[in-house]
Amino acid sequence: MIKMKKALGAKVVGNICPVWLVATYDKNDKPNLLNVGACGWANGKPPCVQVSIRDIRYSHSAIVERKAFTVNIPSDDQWKEADYAGIASGRDADKFKDLGFTPVKSDLVDAPMILECPVNFECRLIGSIELGYNTLFIGEVLDVKVDEHVIDEELGPDIRLIKPMVYWANWGWKGNSYHSIGSELGKVYTQKTKPQR
Amino acid sequence: MIKMKKALGAKVVGNICPVWLVATYDKNDKPNLLNVGACGWANGKPPCVQVSIRDIRYSHSAIVERKAFTVNIPSDDQWKEADYAGIASGRDADKFKDLGFTPVKSDLVDAPMILECPVNFECRLIGSIELGYNTLFIGEVLDVKVDEHVIDEELGPDIRLIKPMVYWANWGWKGNSYHSIGSELGKVYTQKTKPQR
Repeated sequence: MIKMKKALGAKVVGNICPVWLVATYDKNDKPNLLNVGACGWANGKPPCVQVSIRDIRYSHSAIVERKAFTVNIPSDDQWKEADYAGIASGRDADKFKDLGFTPVKSDLVDAPMILECPVNFECRLIGSIELGYNTLFIGEVLDVKVDEHVIDEELGPDIRLIKPMVYWANWGWKGNSYHSIGSELGKVYTQKTKPQR
Repeated sequence: MIKMKKALGAKVVGNICPVWLVATYDKNDKPNLLNVGACGWANGKPPCVQVSIRDIRYSHSAIVERKAFTVNIPSDDQWKEADYAGIASGRDADKFKDLGFTPVKSDLVDAPMILECPVNFECRLIGSIELGYNTLFIGEVLDVKVDEHVIDEELGPDIRLIKPMVYWANWGWKGNSYHSIGSELGKVYTQKTKPQR
C-alpha cells in the first residue's frame, strides 16, 4: 500500500498539548490565571518549562514584570474552568474568584499557586524568545507541589489520580477539544532492542 | 477540607508530554530519528514547535548543521518503536531500518519525514536557547502532512484515527509510561461565562 499524505499548509493542526493554567500577580498584586495553548516541558537539568503567551494577554506583562509564574495542572473534571480561563481576561475579570479557586502565595517565586489544582510548578523566569505575536517564556521549576491524596506510596504522583488532560489543537476545523488521558500502553525505557513485529 | 500539598523538589515529575519523533539527516545524509522527552507547540503565527535535545545526542548536531528537522507523530500502537527510538543512538544504529520506517525527503526542509507516522511537521530551525545540558530548538512549521485515511471530511485530522499518545514523566519513581488519549471532555472556547458548579 502506498500511503497518501495530504498537505494541510502551515497551520496548528494535528497536535496535542498538555492543559496548563499559568498563574501570576498583576501590578496591583491581584492573582490571575491563564489557560495557555502552547506550552510544555523544556529541560531536565535544571527542570524547565516553556509557556508561550501572546503579547496582548494580561498575563504577559505580569510575567515580564514579576519574572515569575506558576504552572498549575488541572484535573480533567476541571476542563470547564480551564476553558473559561482561556477566554476571560484578568484585565476586567477576577478569574480566581469566578472559578472558586484559592490563590496560595509561593514562598519561592513571586506568583500564586492554584490550591485546587493537584500539581503546581513554581517557576522563575530565566529566558524568553520572541516569536511573532507570542513570547516563549522559559521558567526554571524551583519546586513541584503535589496534593498528598494523589501520591501513591510506590508510584509517586499517580497519573490515574491526578487525571491531567490534553488540548487537541486543530485550528481551521471543528475538532478543537479537551481529552482525558487513556490507558497505559507500556513503560518508558523498556525497548532496548528493536521491537519484533 | 484543607488540602495538604507535598513538596517534591526541583524535579521532572507529574508532567505529560506529547510523544514526538524528530527526524534529521546526519552529515553523511543518513536519516535518523529520536524520541524527544521535552517538546511541544510553541507558537500560533507563524506556527512553531519546540524540541529540547541534549547536546550529546546524535540528532543535536544534525539539527545545528542542517538547520532543519521534522516532527513525526506516531500512533499509540507504535509506542514500542517510539521507546526504542529514544534509547538507541544514530551514531551506531540505523533506527529507520531497525524500525521498518521509510524516510521520505521533505521538499521544503533538509530533513526526512517518517512515512509510517500519520502526521508530519516540516520544520525550519529559526532559533534556540541553551538550557544547561539541553538546547531548546525552535522550528517554524512550513507544512503539515497528514495521512489521507486519518482525515475526516468534517473534522479534519481526526484524533480518534491518528491516536497520538503522551509520555508521563515522573522521574525518581516507577511510573514513567506511555498513555493513549482518552475520551473527549468538551469543546474548546465554549465556556464563555463562569462555569456553574
